[in-house]
Amino acid sequence: MTTAIDFARQHQQRFLDELKTLLRIPSVSTDPAHRDHVRQAATHIAGELNRIGLENVRLIETAGTSPTGHPLVYADWLHAPGAPTVLFYGHYDVQPPEPLDEWLSPPFEPTERDGNLYARGAVDDKGQMFMHLKAVEALFVAHGKLPLNVRFLIEGEEEVGGEGIAAYVATKPTNLAADFAVVSDTSMFAPGLPTLCVGLRGMIYTEIEVRSARTDLHSGYGGAAPNSFNALAHILAKIKDASGRILIPGILDSVQTPAEDELRSWQSLPFSEDEFRETVLGSQAIVGDDRFTVFERLWAQPTFDVHGMPGGFTGVGAKTVIPAKATAKASMRLVPNMSSADTFARFRDYIHQVCPPGVSVEVRLIHSAEPSLIPVDNPWIRAAATAMTQVWGRETVFVRTGGSIPIVGDLQRHLGLPCVMMGFGLADDNLHAPNEKFCLRNFHLGIESILLFLESAAALRPAS
Amino acid sequence: MTTAIDFARQHQQRFLDELKTLLRIPSVSTDPAHRDHVRQAATHIAGELNRIGLENVRLIETAGTSPTGHPLVYADWLHAPGAPTVLFYGHYDVQPPEPLDEWLSPPFEPTERDGNLYARGAVDDKGQMFMHLKAVEALFVAHGKLPLNVRFLIEGEEEVGGEGIAAYVATKPTNLAADFAVVSDTSMFAPGLPTLCVGLRGMIYTEIEVRSARTDLHSGYGGAAPNSFNALAHILAKIKDASGRILIPGILDSVQTPAEDELRSWQSLPFSEDEFRETVLGSQAIVGDDRFTVFERLWAQPTFDVHGMPGGFTGVGAKTVIPAKATAKASMRLVPNMSSADTFARFRDYIHQVCPPGVSVEVRLIHSAEPSLIPVDNPWIRAAATAMTQVWGRETVFVRTGGSIPIVGDLQRHLGLPCVMMGFGLADDNLHAPNEKFCLRNFHLGIESILLFLESAAALRPAS
Repeated sequence: MTTAIDFARQHQQRFLDELKTLLRIPSVSTDPAHRDHVRQAATHIAGELNRIGLENVRLIETAGTSPTGHPLVYADWLHAPGAPTVLFYGHYDVQPPEPLDEWLSPPFEPTERDGNLYARGAVDDKGQMFMHLKAVEALFVAHGKLPLNVRFLIEGEEEVGGEGIAAYVATKPTNLAADFAVVSDTSMFAPGLPTLCVGLRGMIYTEIEVRSARTDLHSGYGGAAPNSFNALAHILAKIKDASGRILIPGILDSVQTPAEDELRSWQSLPFSEDEFRETVLGSQAIVGDDRFTVFERLWAQPTFDVHGMPGGFTGVGAKTVIPAKATAKASMRLVPNMSSADTFARFRDYIHQVCPPGVSVEVRLIHSAEPSLIPVDNPWIRAAATAMTQVWGRETVFVRTGGSIPIVGDLQRHLGLPCVMMGFGLADDNLHAPNEKFCLRNFHLGIESILLFLESAAALRPAS
Repeated sequence: MTTAIDFARQHQQRFLDELKTLLRIPSVSTDPAHRDHVRQAATHIAGELNRIGLENVRLIETAGTSPTGHPLVYADWLHAPGAPTVLFYGHYDVQPPEPLDEWLSPPFEPTERDGNLYARGAVDDKGQMFMHLKAVEALFVAHGKLPLNVRFLIEGEEEVGGEGIAAYVATKPTNLAADFAVVSDTSMFAPGLPTLCVGLRGMIYTEIEVRSARTDLHSGYGGAAPNSFNALAHILAKIKDASGRILIPGILDSVQTPAEDELRSWQSLPFSEDEFRETVLGSQAIVGDDRFTVFERLWAQPTFDVHGMPGGFTGVGAKTVIPAKATAKASMRLVPNMSSADTFARFRDYIHQVCPPGVSVEVRLIHSAEPSLIPVDNPWIRAAATAMTQVWGRETVFVRTGGSIPIVGDLQRHLGLPCVMMGFGLADDNLHAPNEKFCLRNFHLGIESILLFLESAAALRPAS
């Protein structure tokens, strides 16, 4: 008899080829020009779910943030009475590939190099989401059925805020009833080190728009005319000081200090600041609030980052203009116990307060996500840790991540589902940047980790 | 016998039609895509100069700042022995028309509305430069010859820094020998108020580029990863404080305080701060260093303005990226006694000094211009003032301008030429902005002012 692991090992090449087919679809959810491609990706995944044996496969339309809404893909298999039910979450949309000229191979032509697969979405999240399908396929073949009940919910708006799925989950639909969720959208702490992520930062993504005049002015009026960009720079410089401390009053009050044992476990992680700086950040220095360790800055403290500043003259050459309007696309990352609504209100009020004279400012919330934290002694987390330790031959570590996965908070809050964040990305995978990649070994061992976890989870009693 | 003024009045419609033909050529010098149009404008003007009777008409190639260099247009008529020689300067290149959607009529289809002619370049500087040609044409017809010697030097790189003409003038070419220059690239202080400009600010136009990492990063690393835009905002906020004071040490030391009588004359100008704010700036407030009057801030104090900040994510939607590179296009305006070289050195050194930790910064000088100041008792200035008073029926006022005309400083420094800046723009002409216009009455009375000035200047003895 072939075990699920045997089957997965025998079909590695086919699994990889199937992933490449999915990666060729440029499902950039933020760009209206790619609307049809996003839908094509959804339809393709629905077809794959159907092919491997899932039932009730369908697209669920939502009223999301993108112009027309990108659909959810749903599927289930519910013929294991008495066994627990798992909800697999993933996303089939990807970040824009720009700047294109920095890619070594085309972003939507998956290319293998040095044991990695390079493509936009390779790891975030098509590659990791696809592991769930392949693990379930292997279980189907090996067992002739599934050892537990399975649901899939795969979204297409994760990279544009995911408001469609958030609104859907908030309605507590009965077809999402489950005992736990599995999300593979995080990274391993180090290559070969099995890692479960138990904490996420939330975020508020905003636009700060300053208006200084009715129309652009010749800069000969400089010295008396307000300048939208000068004013905006003054505002931005007052949100976080040059050393990295957030200056918005009250914003740090609700920050939850990590438990002593969690802080201790972080200290035992294999970590070289210098290597992190060089390999991951690629910067001259690690910066930030030096009252905190690097892990605390990334996982347990809020922050503020500017993403770009549209407006004004950005062409070649010199235009002596005082721009009437300047905008900053900027976000704050939030940590456990902070609320996005409260943080945005303080953020907006503070900006109005520090806005220089002579200009007006408007602060818009583009999207938000709540932070989340899951206890490490949760039974599904423990089963997952055991399965990963078995596959990778090393003790599984527990970390948090500095990024945000809004759906994790939503599944927890609305459906009471603990999320097992079993991720197989690596720190140098270039998420959201040119030359995104997925380590091929992680893709294959990730599939094995998931199917072993499901086999052991099947033996656990559902909570109720 | 027809006087020159009679002739100009009889041919107003033709003069205007000829100007429209010139304005239809989109000679945007900063944009390589318009290279052929810029040359077309040069050739067109050469043809016009030839047609009205100038001699030695030719294009002079320079090694300017634009990709291939845009030529100077030269012409002369030197058959008035014993009479002085005037050098007319103007420019045939224009600013980019963007943002296009804010124009009420197409920028390169000159359109008359409410006594104004709307087009890119209508006043800056095609319309004003063309007045020189029409004044000379009227003198030719009325006198059968010219009452003084005339040279024209018209450039096509004024809006991209004018380094070609600067290098050319610096060689002190014999064919630029003259007694004074006439430049019409400034504005009247108020509608109907004849105005001579005797002072100009200089400038350094720069790019400040901050690098924070090898490549863009996912903003989940925020809090520990340096951010190029956050760092650049901190730098910009330290150059000029929120109240408008330049914070660069030593930069104000060489600023020349205007003479008492010049300050007094400014106090007598018809000026309403509120009207200036509303009509000219179109802003909520006049800002700047409140130790100085508005005229001092605009004419006698340096300033710093950001024009745009290319880099990062500026598209629609939300991209959670920490940009590896941020740039500010920014300039300082300089006032009499400041040198561009010294100012740039202090500017660059200061930026390196205030640059936050963890990032590197590079400061590039794109172009520069020296400030200039001409005594109001200069004989050519006095003759010009008398001619303008005669045409407009009001006493001519003397002002400075907050803008820069680099060639004025160059003609003064290299050729010893005092520049008569006889300008006919108005404050609401939308220079460098959408809906640029030229008041039709000013175009016609400007031609009359220039030809009367030339007739009286012809009677003055050359300096040597």
